[in-house]
Amino acid sequence: MRNIYLNTTSLEEAMEIFRNNIEKFLQNNEKELIDTKDACGRISSDAIFAKHSSPSYNSSAVDGVMLNSEITKSARENNPIFIPNEDFKYCNTGDILEHPYNAAIMIEDITEKKDGIEIIKGVTSWQNIRTIGEDVIEKDLIYTAFHKFSAVDLSVLISTGIDKVEVLKKPVIGIIPTGNEIIEDFKNYKEGKIVESNSYMLSAMAKENGADAKVYPIVKDEKDLLKKAIIKAKEECDFVTVIAGSSAGSKDYTKEILAELGEVFIHGLSIKPGKPAVIGKIEDTPFVGLPGFPVACHIVFDKVVIPVILEKLRQIGTTKKSIDAILTKQVITSLKNREYIRVNIGSVDGKITATPLDRKAGSLYSLSRSDGYLVVDRNLEGYNRKDIVRIDLHKDIPKSILDNRLVVIGSNDMVIDVINDLFAKKGMKERLLSSHVGSLSGLKALKDGDCHIAPSHLLDKNGSYNNDAIKLFFDEDEVIKLNVVGRRQGIYVPKGNPKNIKTIKDLVGKTMVNRQRGAGTRVLFDYLLDKEGIDPDSIKEYDNEVTTHIEAALKVKNKECDFSIGVESQAINMGIDFIYLKDEEYQFIIRKENINLKPIKELIVLLKTNEFKLTMEEVGGYSIKNSGEIL
Amino acid sequence: MRNIYLNTTSLEEAMEIFRNNIEKFLQNNEKELIDTKDACGRISSDAIFAKHSSPSYNSSAVDGVMLNSEITKSARENNPIFIPNEDFKYCNTGDILEHPYNAAIMIEDITEKKDGIEIIKGVTSWQNIRTIGEDVIEKDLIYTAFHKFSAVDLSVLISTGIDKVEVLKKPVIGIIPTGNEIIEDFKNYKEGKIVESNSYMLSAMAKENGADAKVYPIVKDEKDLLKKAIIKAKEECDFVTVIAGSSAGSKDYTKEILAELGEVFIHGLSIKPGKPAVIGKIEDTPFVGLPGFPVACHIVFDKVVIPVILEKLRQIGTTKKSIDAILTKQVITSLKNREYIRVNIGSVDGKITATPLDRKAGSLYSLSRSDGYLVVDRNLEGYNRKDIVRIDLHKDIPKSILDNRLVVIGSNDMVIDVINDLFAKKGMKERLLSSHVGSLSGLKALKDGDCHIAPSHLLDKNGSYNNDAIKLFFDEDEVIKLNVVGRRQGIYVPKGNPKNIKTIKDLVGKTMVNRQRGAGTRVLFDYLLDKEGIDPDSIKEYDNEVTTHIEAALKVKNKECDFSIGVESQAINMGIDFIYLKDEEYQFIIRKENINLKPIKELIVLLKTNEFKLTMEEVGGYSIKNSGEIL
Repeated sequence: MRNIYLNTTSLEEAMEIFRNNIEKFLQNNEKELIDTKDACGRISSDAIFAKHSSPSYNSSAVDGVMLNSEITKSARENNPIFIPNEDFKYCNTGDILEHPYNAAIMIEDITEKKDGIEIIKGVTSWQNIRTIGEDVIEKDLIYTAFHKFSAVDLSVLISTGIDKVEVLKKPVIGIIPTGNEIIEDFKNYKEGKIVESNSYMLSAMAKENGADAKVYPIVKDEKDLLKKAIIKAKEECDFVTVIAGSSAGSKDYTKEILAELGEVFIHGLSIKPGKPAVIGKIEDTPFVGLPGFPVACHIVFDKVVIPVILEKLRQIGTTKKSIDAILTKQVITSLKNREYIRVNIGSVDGKITATPLDRKAGSLYSLSRSDGYLVVDRNLEGYNRKDIVRIDLHKDIPKSILDNRLVVIGSNDMVIDVINDLFAKKGMKERLLSSHVGSLSGLKALKDGDCHIAPSHLLDKNGSYNNDAIKLFFDEDEVIKLNVVGRRQGIYVPKGNPKNIKTIKDLVGKTMVNRQRGAGTRVLFDYLLDKEGIDPDSIKEYDNEVTTHIEAALKVKNKECDFSIGVESQAINMGIDFIYLKDEEYQFIIRKENINLKPIKELIVLLKTNEFKLTMEEVGGYSIKNSGEIL
Repeated sequence: MRNIYLNTTSLEEAMEIFRNNIEKFLQNNEKELIDTKDACGRISSDAIFAKHSSPSYNSSAVDGVMLNSEITKSARENNPIFIPNEDFKYCNTGDILEHPYNAAIMIEDITEKKDGIEIIKGVTSWQNIRTIGEDVIEKDLIYTAFHKFSAVDLSVLISTGIDKVEVLKKPVIGIIPTGNEIIEDFKNYKEGKIVESNSYMLSAMAKENGADAKVYPIVKDEKDLLKKAIIKAKEECDFVTVIAGSSAGSKDYTKEILAELGEVFIHGLSIKPGKPAVIGKIEDTPFVGLPGFPVACHIVFDKVVIPVILEKLRQIGTTKKSIDAILTKQVITSLKNREYIRVNIGSVDGKITATPLDRKAGSLYSLSRSDGYLVVDRNLEGYNRKDIVRIDLHKDIPKSILDNRLVVIGSNDMVIDVINDLFAKKGMKERLLSSHVGSLSGLKALKDGDCHIAPSHLLDKNGSYNNDAIKLFFDEDEVIKLNVVGRRQGIYVPKGNPKNIKTIKDLVGKTMVNRQRGAGTRVLFDYLLDKEGIDPDSIKEYDNEVTTHIEAALKVKNKECDFSIGVESQAINMGIDFIYLKDEEYQFIIRKENINLKPIKELIVLLKTNEFKLTMEEVGGYSIKNSGEIL
């Protein structure tokens, strides 16, 4: 049995229907009494009234002496007053005010004399005294219902006599992972299996938003088993979610079961990623079927489950931050769905930029690396390059992070990760934020002011590097070339070289995975093919492209092709064989006007350190003799 | 023995000296291996490399059929292609890609026929396939050292085979509360004792910033005991703090002990609150002696201890937010210290306002209620009203909070707390943010555009309310009066009325606590004294002022005076006796142009609800028959 979506619903419409149908869940707030010391981040269930005043007695607010203000009245600089020992008492800050005293004088303002003290400035009654209730008065309403306690609030509660506090119980979200292909960990891994990871993210998200999570064992795609699991979760939790099985596949039972046990409000949302969602309830327990693809799963949990939890906890005012940014790449979307595009934020030449990342629903790592979402509504077909767009940030990006972030667009190499790791280890804030588009596209991005650094290794006609390509975009002296590493380029073949490839001529008739057009490695490969008079069409799958060395090496390792091309370091890293073709310089191209930016200067310093050179030697396959040199 | 501060050091200078002397603490990062599921918010100790690719096999990215793309090439709308059952296989999203297939087609794009399917659009090789390593490739450096893990990161880690992760150990901050007057809780309370509350706040702050806290039992002001406690904490913790005892009082041993066990770097900071601080180390363990007054304790922990912890954890980029605001009151400070003034933020007539709160070092509740600090540097004598100042926020205030916040300046009544609590209980975001300055000052603030609402109850010559005072500031029809509650004003006397006060004439010769000049209650009292021909000087302590009804009632309850004046509701609340004098209307004065603001409209609606009326009847002493009426 397959169901097909009848139609999809907009997120707003879906949420309105959902909310209107779960009022009992939203309004019913169970309470619990907890120790005040554990109350940070918890939410009061009712108004809280001070049990005691704070402070609870009158005391000296200074180190000095306490006395009666009357006897100090006439003290002046030119009329010092002597006060005998019997008319005052030395006191420390916090000492109880003793009868008949009503004021205190600081130790700095008295002069000690034989049998007494001398003062040259009087005090008024209650001066330098902390009076009862100065901070809080007993029976004061100090916090309203639904107040989220801060660290400071805990001390206020304790100092006003409240050592236990009634708070909202954390709603428990049940999470049921499903799928025949899903396994618990890599111990029993075999091809075709996927290790369950969504529940880790969802549990943490639940906790960050004031709820608790209960993760159930993985359920196979069998209707009876899933139904049993849902019934159990419904008994034990305040909110039930099921991961995967909400789509229209033949093993997607979630909707069917929900219809049997309760009510289905929505099947299918017009958002992308996130379409395959089921929303409903079982009795008064809200129910959401989440998509299995990690990014889609994240979006539906974030946009459907979390808002309902925050509403129940009356914390809806705590919205996320957004930022306006200039889009560095065109984004095309369909009119069918609202799309959530992951982006990275940079600050280049004084303007905030947003660079779109991978859009696949499974690319969780690109979500992990992203700063926020560009939301493209259903009625739009996308945005153009240079459009000013609003980005919804996952979390705030302080200026100090942004100012130390170098936007890197161009050819990729693992040296970028190594540089970031070294910056981190030194406790420095500088970071390279890189997008991999190949050398040529990187230079264009640099020209357009979209990045600080374009990593490039484009072979010149004369055998040098990057000069020809730079001339395409820049005037003379407009940019500098910073040597990062020398690399050995060559052919990747599986361990043991099963097809016995020795030179470039042996590649004819073999199946390859190529690098994308404009990548330096591709330029070099095409140059060498041309030099040898080999027609690219004589190589199978010449148009099958990947965008990084590491992907190319992996395809070879997994024997998805006979060979690929790339740098030696990745062959070493991946444990495959490597046939050397040519040396090359991997350089960072930087606009001259930017070389005095602090993070660029720190980068140049880093490239010259022994630490950097040792690390790259350890990785292997690199030459570091020119690293940090500016051309 | 008393020490006197030799001199105080600026915070920047102190922090530089401190940092330079605790390099070993800052650099030494102990690691621990934890379960990935517990890693949210923790910090990686080293670079992390993917153990497995994600996904780890090629699979269908859609529900539909998998097939070889070659056979679909010629399919067009006008040239449908029939594919027999033996040339494709039905698949669900995530199904492993089987040999010899290399693409998938969505179920929506096929038409089922007898013995096969028909398609009108071809696919290319690898289309709709999730390929190995599409998200992360094995051996990729996925997180650098010192990366703080988010919820999403946990799933990335798990899906790349990392089920345990090496993170920085949380530094443990030892917290030793001291003082003869300090007790653990209110159970053994007697006058002169203070319940220890600072450690609750400090523990929560430590945890919020990635550290752990260990709170030790309270230590009496005896040098040997404190020394023993410090030695023990030094053995068990990574950082030692002592609360109180860092000042220059005769029982302040912290500095002395630190000098004996280790090194004193700083004694006395030029910040206010926060001056009495001691900074040093014992061997390689950093040591900070904190002031005992809660706000000073908070500031020194926040500005001295937390930055060092964040630096150790390499999280220094995560700075707090600030906001520019118009100051609504003059602030005068001394040139001696940098002062931290607590403020509340409002948004009135489109401009952001900052209203200074209580400045006492002990007023923790005012810190708890505040939105941030106005920092006045040593070289400044303060700021003028209307100056634009930068406010360092404790935490971000979203626009949705600010837009629903009504700034209330004027006369105080507990009805304001009740209104806030009712808004909170209804899950509404509207809040009244009130400062108590008395009716007259409130009207002036309203005139100056510093607030939305001026609560007022100023008696007119003809016995009506607020008309005369409004004429002082506003043109006719410039403001409206919103009736909130009717109140019974009268005389507060201790339970049982020991001085047998019956009418206003009985007050002559008695000791009072008065309300501040400009408060409606004071105006009424002066009016009645005048009517009876009583000279205010015939009443003792006529100039001893408090600013709220609740404070006045408390002073009477504690028998600090013979009588005070105020509204009946507080007498009931505080359990004291009340002698009725006159009825009055407590009104909110609002500019006409603001009555259509959403939160004002919601307020008017609320005042007319049964819920509001029932709550006020329960409190007692109020008339609610005109509540919500606009005059």
